[in-house]
Amino acid sequence: MSDDLWVWGSNATEPRILHAMIRVADLERSLGFYCGALGMRKLVQHDVPAGKFSIAFVSFSSDYESGAIELTHNWESPANDEGYSHGSGYGHIAIGVPDVPGTCARLRSAGIDITVEPKILFPGGPSLAFVKDPDGYSIELIQTSRDYPGI
Amino acid sequence: MSDDLWVWGSNATEPRILHAMIRVADLERSLGFYCGALGMRKLVQHDVPAGKFSIAFVSFSSDYESGAIELTHNWESPANDEGYSHGSGYGHIAIGVPDVPGTCARLRSAGIDITVEPKILFPGGPSLAFVKDPDGYSIELIQTSRDYPGI
Repeated sequence: MSDDLWVWGSNATEPRILHAMIRVADLERSLGFYCGALGMRKLVQHDVPAGKFSIAFVSFSSDYESGAIELTHNWESPANDEGYSHGSGYGHIAIGVPDVPGTCARLRSAGIDITVEPKILFPGGPSLAFVKDPDGYSIELIQTSRDYPGI
Repeated sequence: MSDDLWVWGSNATEPRILHAMIRVADLERSLGFYCGALGMRKLVQHDVPAGKFSIAFVSFSSDYESGAIELTHNWESPANDEGYSHGSGYGHIAIGVPDVPGTCARLRSAGIDITVEPKILFPGGPSLAFVKDPDGYSIELIQTSRDYPGI
């Protein structure tokens, strides 16, 4: 028995949220966004020829204790050029970053679409912005440090 | 300036994943599932008449340090009986629970649909199962304690 199979823990007494899974058309492209641009790291990647899919877990942490995103790439789909549909139900994944405008500037210079420019909803409150990942999934950025101007 | 506006932190130096947002047709029904059945707690609820929406954050933690789910209820939508569409891209939100079969039995007795019964993918590994929330969002349950049989 290998603990590699129990990466999310093997002696927990309480439940916790582990990750959100999204399907991506091009795993390397998505890793470029989540790891290269956003600064996450790839915790693991499994390529499963029998099932014709690959999965990778990415997180800002180096372990599995903090939140993660599971990127699933089905090798043979989607078959059309439109990629996956997003529906009307799922909204976004939110990421806290110390400096929202700085992060947006960095992402923009990497060619990433800023869909909602940094704004402050309440005076004295944090800034937020929205960007799109390569598959069009919406990512919210929320300011988590007062040491930066919000806009 | 109130720290109520900085619940996700005001002096962070590193980014982290905060939450996933989903739109729900009936907020009370969803709170019944995530809090009543799954055992999360409601961190906060904001009702915004000007925007005709309510949002609630639910988490297994009592603070905003661990992962959370943001439930958004638009008071006037969806207008049809079909509710929100889920698309083909978003997959699921994964929750680690010590005892997957026990959790499924408890959820089933509460009338919740178990879409994939507990199973073990690899010998010696954890059990997993899938359930649906009231809006049909897929929730994966992953076993995080060896103290329980996986199936």
